[in-house]
Amino acid sequence: MSRPRPAGQHTVRRHNSALVLGALSTAPGSSRAAVAAATGLTKATVSSLVDRLIGAGLIAEGEVEFRLGPGRRGTALHLSPAGPHGLGVEIGVDHITTWLVDFTGHVRRKWVRPGDNRNSAPARVLAKVATAVRAAATEDVPIGGVGVAVPGLVEAATGTLRVAPNLGWREVDVRDELVRRAALDVPVLVGNEANLAALAELRHGVGGRDFVHISGEIGIGAGIVVHGALFEGVSGFGGELGHLPVDPRGPVCGCGSRGCLERLAGQDRIVRAAGVTTVAELLTALAGNEKAALAAVRTAARWLGVALSAAINLLDLPTVVLGGTYAHLEPWLGPPLAAELSRRVLGAQWSPVRVVASELGADAAVLGAAGSAIRAILADPDPYVASVLG
Amino acid sequence: MSRPRPAGQHTVRRHNSALVLGALSTAPGSSRAAVAAATGLTKATVSSLVDRLIGAGLIAEGEVEFRLGPGRRGTALHLSPAGPHGLGVEIGVDHITTWLVDFTGHVRRKWVRPGDNRNSAPARVLAKVATAVRAAATEDVPIGGVGVAVPGLVEAATGTLRVAPNLGWREVDVRDELVRRAALDVPVLVGNEANLAALAELRHGVGGRDFVHISGEIGIGAGIVVHGALFEGVSGFGGELGHLPVDPRGPVCGCGSRGCLERLAGQDRIVRAAGVTTVAELLTALAGNEKAALAAVRTAARWLGVALSAAINLLDLPTVVLGGTYAHLEPWLGPPLAAELSRRVLGAQWSPVRVVASELGADAAVLGAAGSAIRAILADPDPYVASVLG
Repeated sequence: MSRPRPAGQHTVRRHNSALVLGALSTAPGSSRAAVAAATGLTKATVSSLVDRLIGAGLIAEGEVEFRLGPGRRGTALHLSPAGPHGLGVEIGVDHITTWLVDFTGHVRRKWVRPGDNRNSAPARVLAKVATAVRAAATEDVPIGGVGVAVPGLVEAATGTLRVAPNLGWREVDVRDELVRRAALDVPVLVGNEANLAALAELRHGVGGRDFVHISGEIGIGAGIVVHGALFEGVSGFGGELGHLPVDPRGPVCGCGSRGCLERLAGQDRIVRAAGVTTVAELLTALAGNEKAALAAVRTAARWLGVALSAAINLLDLPTVVLGGTYAHLEPWLGPPLAAELSRRVLGAQWSPVRVVASELGADAAVLGAAGSAIRAILADPDPYVASVLG
Repeated sequence: MSRPRPAGQHTVRRHNSALVLGALSTAPGSSRAAVAAATGLTKATVSSLVDRLIGAGLIAEGEVEFRLGPGRRGTALHLSPAGPHGLGVEIGVDHITTWLVDFTGHVRRKWVRPGDNRNSAPARVLAKVATAVRAAATEDVPIGGVGVAVPGLVEAATGTLRVAPNLGWREVDVRDELVRRAALDVPVLVGNEANLAALAELRHGVGGRDFVHISGEIGIGAGIVVHGALFEGVSGFGGELGHLPVDPRGPVCGCGSRGCLERLAGQDRIVRAAGVTTVAELLTALAGNEKAALAAVRTAARWLGVALSAAINLLDLPTVVLGGTYAHLEPWLGPPLAAELSRRVLGAQWSPVRVVASELGADAAVLGAAGSAIRAILADPDPYVASVLG
């Protein structure tokens, strides 16, 4: 136990602990000396911080010493796979998915509970979510936090889910409900699924540091990443690509507007237009070159192109990452979408737009949700360290 | 003349000079002691920097001493109105406008040369611009730089005007042409007119620190300001609101796409639909409640609402500033536009969108262009100071 220190000292230690973890996250296997060089902290400070972070289980020492240079040796340090795990939850329209991800970002366990959550009362769905979270928490690993991905507007300042049109939910305090129902004593973060998916893409994906990631499912959302950071807008309501009015006189949408993209290019619409009932059947039909399926995807690609050309004319981003169901449709969806963009983006000739499939597919949101719990600890490890060391 | 110093010292002085000017820009009338307090520099450093900046004409001392506190007195310092002036040029579709703005941001002189520049060869128009610049440079004030606003895509990395659809220009190096033709020996900055207008709005306007500013003229552009900074996209091509495809099957646009906003809500379209020939006549007709004029503006408001709801669903910005001709149309344009946004923006209920008229109107771009030359000196005064002091 350390003696009480002035507030300033505490703040400095918190900040410096985050610097040390950040250095090891960027360059795993660094020695104490290398961490000191990377952070600008003294070796003595780094050693003291590292000892504390090892004590709390966040950092592990490598088994072998390695040569750093002439006459110098150092012990390799890593973020510890036995450190705090992130528990990611995705409340989807037709599933509840839970992933346990270790402190280094590796997935340890996955659970999926299919089931239609549309127009279920939030209390009913959140009871199922709480059961899922409690089940995952019985695994014999420390849980550092829970991240929850929801398909709707989450207000950044309050964490409240304001509206989730495809669930039929309004004004649900998912965080408080879940803390109460699952009796959680770790931080719970609630975020928009498309934003969390984009963060997973940023960490693990193919989009680079500037892209728009499309979560194409029953709803359509986007996560906008600029210079390696998520752009959420002033209230956290940005990236609502699914509600861009691509056909202003088109069909009424659940949100109250008309001709929204997700009514014209969402998964349900494509499947129905293709004359099948599931995405798996759609993919089979596409692989068999069935006309109705090919036409359904081409039509969706054109509407998606209208929405994305609006986004790129405004934001001038070099890459579109097709995520969710769209990732699997990319061989058919990508080329007509790219053609639409080259026609409709004013700067396309000088700043061409690359369309790529996410390798994470529909898993990006739950991975991003788990990652948000880990990122919170990396950014400010002290609350977790204090909870372990007392 | 100062002795040669190590490079590090120079860099520090450049940085610190910018800090001093920034402090006086934020708090005009500060004393040397107040500048020291605001910047964290020592009083000795501030005094030395201030003397040099006074010598180069960037700072002026007030005539009266004032009491700072018990027993302390200081001379008030200001950015000098006799310091380097910014010369702003706007190459519009139907005018060339030149403004001379002093170092404190006050407009000293204005020139306007009406004339249709559509489909004129760039060389012809740039010869007129060079004449205008040379005429302005004969004023008896120091010119610190020239900012040029153009209605097209300006590549951030190269400064090249890639395309200006409404001028019919492609691939024009406006900067080099102008430096050569006007024999300029000061920095020349070329920027997109909508972006420069948004920067003027940020400095002088009513939009706050997060807004989208619409330059509604013959073309329609937007400048996106987030957390007090312009968002231009990776290549500088962002904000092309005029080319959002609001009616994907609509009329062909000069850019090669279909149903672009500026074909449906641009100034020419509104004027024609109202059955008049000029904006002045349109305003008269609106003031007289003439049906065709009212209907023309309502229709434009609906299309503008479609485009802006796309922008705000993506960016979640709290304010739309109507600039250019739209500023004058705001009494008629604003209410139906706001209604369209409240219907079509998913988060509007929790993050309402304010629609306001710019007080700068059509002057924002040329003011922003002049300001860009002054901002460049405020950000890095040393090249100008060195040119004066030798």
